[in-house]
Amino acid sequence: MQGLMQEWPLLAYKVIEHAALNHPNREVISRSVEGGIHRTNYLDVRNRALKVAQGLEKDGCKLGDRIATLAWNTWRHLESWYGIMGIGAIYHTLNPRLFPEQIAWIMNDAEDKMLFVDLTFIPIVEAIADKVPSLEKIIVYCEPENLPESKLNLISYEAWISELDGDFKWHDFDENTAAGMCYTSGTTGDPKGVLYSHRSNILHGLAANQVDMLGLSSRDRLLPVVPMFHANAWSTAFSAPMTGATLIFPGAQMDGASIYEMLTKERATVTAAVPTVWLMLLDHLEKDDGKLPDLERVVIGGAACPRSMIEAFQNKYGVKVCHAWGMTEMSPLGAICTFKPEIDAMDKDAQMDISVKQGHAPFTVEMKITDDENNDLPWDGKTFGRLKVRGPAVAKSYFKGRGKEDFDANGFFDTGDVSTMDEHGYMQITDRSKDVIKSGGEWISTIDLENLAVGHPDVMEAAVIGIPHPKWDERPLLVIVPKEGKSPKPEEILSFMEGKIAKWWMPNGVEFVDEIPHTATGKIQKIDLRKQFSDYRFNK
Amino acid sequence: MQGLMQEWPLLAYKVIEHAALNHPNREVISRSVEGGIHRTNYLDVRNRALKVAQGLEKDGCKLGDRIATLAWNTWRHLESWYGIMGIGAIYHTLNPRLFPEQIAWIMNDAEDKMLFVDLTFIPIVEAIADKVPSLEKIIVYCEPENLPESKLNLISYEAWISELDGDFKWHDFDENTAAGMCYTSGTTGDPKGVLYSHRSNILHGLAANQVDMLGLSSRDRLLPVVPMFHANAWSTAFSAPMTGATLIFPGAQMDGASIYEMLTKERATVTAAVPTVWLMLLDHLEKDDGKLPDLERVVIGGAACPRSMIEAFQNKYGVKVCHAWGMTEMSPLGAICTFKPEIDAMDKDAQMDISVKQGHAPFTVEMKITDDENNDLPWDGKTFGRLKVRGPAVAKSYFKGRGKEDFDANGFFDTGDVSTMDEHGYMQITDRSKDVIKSGGEWISTIDLENLAVGHPDVMEAAVIGIPHPKWDERPLLVIVPKEGKSPKPEEILSFMEGKIAKWWMPNGVEFVDEIPHTATGKIQKIDLRKQFSDYRFNK
Repeated sequence: MQGLMQEWPLLAYKVIEHAALNHPNREVISRSVEGGIHRTNYLDVRNRALKVAQGLEKDGCKLGDRIATLAWNTWRHLESWYGIMGIGAIYHTLNPRLFPEQIAWIMNDAEDKMLFVDLTFIPIVEAIADKVPSLEKIIVYCEPENLPESKLNLISYEAWISELDGDFKWHDFDENTAAGMCYTSGTTGDPKGVLYSHRSNILHGLAANQVDMLGLSSRDRLLPVVPMFHANAWSTAFSAPMTGATLIFPGAQMDGASIYEMLTKERATVTAAVPTVWLMLLDHLEKDDGKLPDLERVVIGGAACPRSMIEAFQNKYGVKVCHAWGMTEMSPLGAICTFKPEIDAMDKDAQMDISVKQGHAPFTVEMKITDDENNDLPWDGKTFGRLKVRGPAVAKSYFKGRGKEDFDANGFFDTGDVSTMDEHGYMQITDRSKDVIKSGGEWISTIDLENLAVGHPDVMEAAVIGIPHPKWDERPLLVIVPKEGKSPKPEEILSFMEGKIAKWWMPNGVEFVDEIPHTATGKIQKIDLRKQFSDYRFNK
Repeated sequence: MQGLMQEWPLLAYKVIEHAALNHPNREVISRSVEGGIHRTNYLDVRNRALKVAQGLEKDGCKLGDRIATLAWNTWRHLESWYGIMGIGAIYHTLNPRLFPEQIAWIMNDAEDKMLFVDLTFIPIVEAIADKVPSLEKIIVYCEPENLPESKLNLISYEAWISELDGDFKWHDFDENTAAGMCYTSGTTGDPKGVLYSHRSNILHGLAANQVDMLGLSSRDRLLPVVPMFHANAWSTAFSAPMTGATLIFPGAQMDGASIYEMLTKERATVTAAVPTVWLMLLDHLEKDDGKLPDLERVVIGGAACPRSMIEAFQNKYGVKVCHAWGMTEMSPLGAICTFKPEIDAMDKDAQMDISVKQGHAPFTVEMKITDDENNDLPWDGKTFGRLKVRGPAVAKSYFKGRGKEDFDANGFFDTGDVSTMDEHGYMQITDRSKDVIKSGGEWISTIDLENLAVGHPDVMEAAVIGIPHPKWDERPLLVIVPKEGKSPKPEEILSFMEGKIAKWWMPNGVEFVDEIPHTATGKIQKIDLRKQFSDYRFNK
């Protein structure tokens, strides 16, 4: 027997309609890429999104078409997303930090039909446009008078939109219709496209808005530093209008001073970014003796956040830090490190031990850890295993059927991370499954070793890789970039680490380098590091 | 093109599984109907829910069967809901406050197959069991030794459950499958069954958990005074396990002293009930000089809450009051009166003017007000019209196709309420559409007149009905129950009201009675009042 409830498909336009009706004057503030601070509100964003939808349809776009965006977080990017989704087309966010040839490859794979682009990225587009035959139209986020000279046929977004009256009715379709697309830049193989649906974006937004997750309210003023081209901006483009939170977009200026200015002048109460951004902000705060009187909480994700950074925010600036963890394949939120009452009851030191963990899952995200044979492992805070997830906003495969090996028989997605789960349900990433060192049948976490090594005062950066070993299969090699002017000795580093980890975890060797290779998104590129040390062997 | 996200149907068992895995030791505390305080947790509730599911299946229950419950809020009622839903059967909550013959009528209409019942309600069941031929089994929420003597074949719940090992796998099915059923006791016609689905219950729970709605967190300790037989207990049976909030169930003792004891001893942070319960609590607090140190907020719904009650809670006891509004047909939450930033910025008096309103809608509830011709009316806080709603947790019809007239062509449900919407999106009920007085083409709110009249120190209760009038179609008659020992004169009441309302709203007559008729759920029974005054005519 079916329930007798209204059919009300979970379609993205309902989010922006809700905001326009219930929070019409709530501000959407942006540092414009063209210059200056731009102020609009949810009513206008909705009205202009309708024009975008109308314009796309006029230009021949239809259900299922991929519309690329290469843009910073601004009101124009936001209204474009809703306009694109409103005709059943798919916003496809491109990451400008990739190499131009990678961007071209991705656009060809996605067969993007149109492109919305910020002024800053015109050079990238000029370099690749002739390599993307599917691309019919390039619309630049600017006023007509700011449109640059170009060999390409560029169209001003404001000119394009000004010809439309917005007399348009949102299209209705199945809620499983594709809404957005984002490619993951894995360390191996070609990039793989994740295809979000209207349903997944909305369920994810509702889950993210739970109190113990992002917990946005209409009184919040959210500054998402995390870019919309980076894993759906952690749901903020959905969660904020859903609840009527004020949006403060940083535009193209992501340095410490600019972020500080937006945080303080626009009185942000909550903000979200990767650790490198927060390092720049903390550095700026130190130098300028800055204060953060309005900021209540900082969500930190994208990479593990050092304990020292959490302590600095909390103790020095009175800002609560919430570690978060997610993946492009998860829309992206998987866990966030808010405190359950059991943690609230602990002393400050024990709480800090929890704060460095990635957090616990919301309803709609199922998590488990398994061994290589897919047997469940205990939630004891010590045992680590492959982290697998399931839920309505988790990918079931990649665009064009790629990466099937990541989706196992039980419908869980293998995240490629190795983690522990503790008795309170807090997950902590200990490694990537391809990086973990298998020594004599036991696993050693390279991340734990790296975090320990960077605690040494002479160490700037550290990376650990497995080196083949005749007796133990693999043993850890510690690779170090010393701080400027410092030249620590291997035995100094090792004796610093001694007693802080199990004896059999101790690296068998330490090597010093000037630089450690990184991916476009700032993560350590261990595949290159392993190549660099492919002939390396321990002498014990 | 479809998104490539996992199929993850919104099924109720996932809620209790989430709680059991992520919040296993979080308490579910109940005042047991058998006596004493009972403590369990989400892990045990899940484990016993599995036994209920297993037992129901063993007893021949299957997908779509209606399983009635006639019970207070306790852990057993909660685990029964999840057990029933876990095989795709339908929990059907019966309201013990109805007359036995009404309950029998409803059970026959629903064709209930089994009944779970509290000890307190055995007399009701004994009175009606032979009138419900579909009823195969009656299970009493008690230990075997507490099972009463009866002419009926009663089974002890604990004996029944103890024969099961819980080795059971939740069933999977379409998320639109019916999950729960609740009859509305309208003032006219036969009761009508609302049929919730798994999808609607889960979407409603997610929406209710948004910060600006119930806003539950795992740190909350929720005492739902509102019964599970009353409109899904305002979603608390779903929202609390979804987020891991501690549940504190009051059982059968709903008087001020008992509620106070549960609130304080179990340190509730949030609670929800109808105004009459809060009146009893405030009365108890006054008499015993009580304090509410842990309680942060009170959700008040089911009827409009007087300004004086809101002020007492906030000013005297430091407890935030959130007016809420919903209907059985809406799962039930439609609006809640949390403050948007524009309200936060107002002075205390202006805020109180907002607090008496029913509140604003969450994402997933669409609201509008229309005139009789279905034209949208402005959100100006003055114009009042028929309140219509739409959303995934709003009924599209009643069981067996009843009440089709309430669902109009545009897919909106006509709530039967008349309300205003203000510029900030706050809705205020001004009347029921069948009670509103149409005087010379304009509408007069009977509720506004009643609220004003009860402000007179000699007035205990007030009701306003429309009386036919040769010139104006209808004019208001004010019916008053004076306070004990008081006998105010009509002109005293009228002069008290003068200047506080538009002149043409002033009642044409005042009548005094000993008692005003009420419905089973405590609302004024205006249909009976109108009968009583059917021959009444104004002499001016």
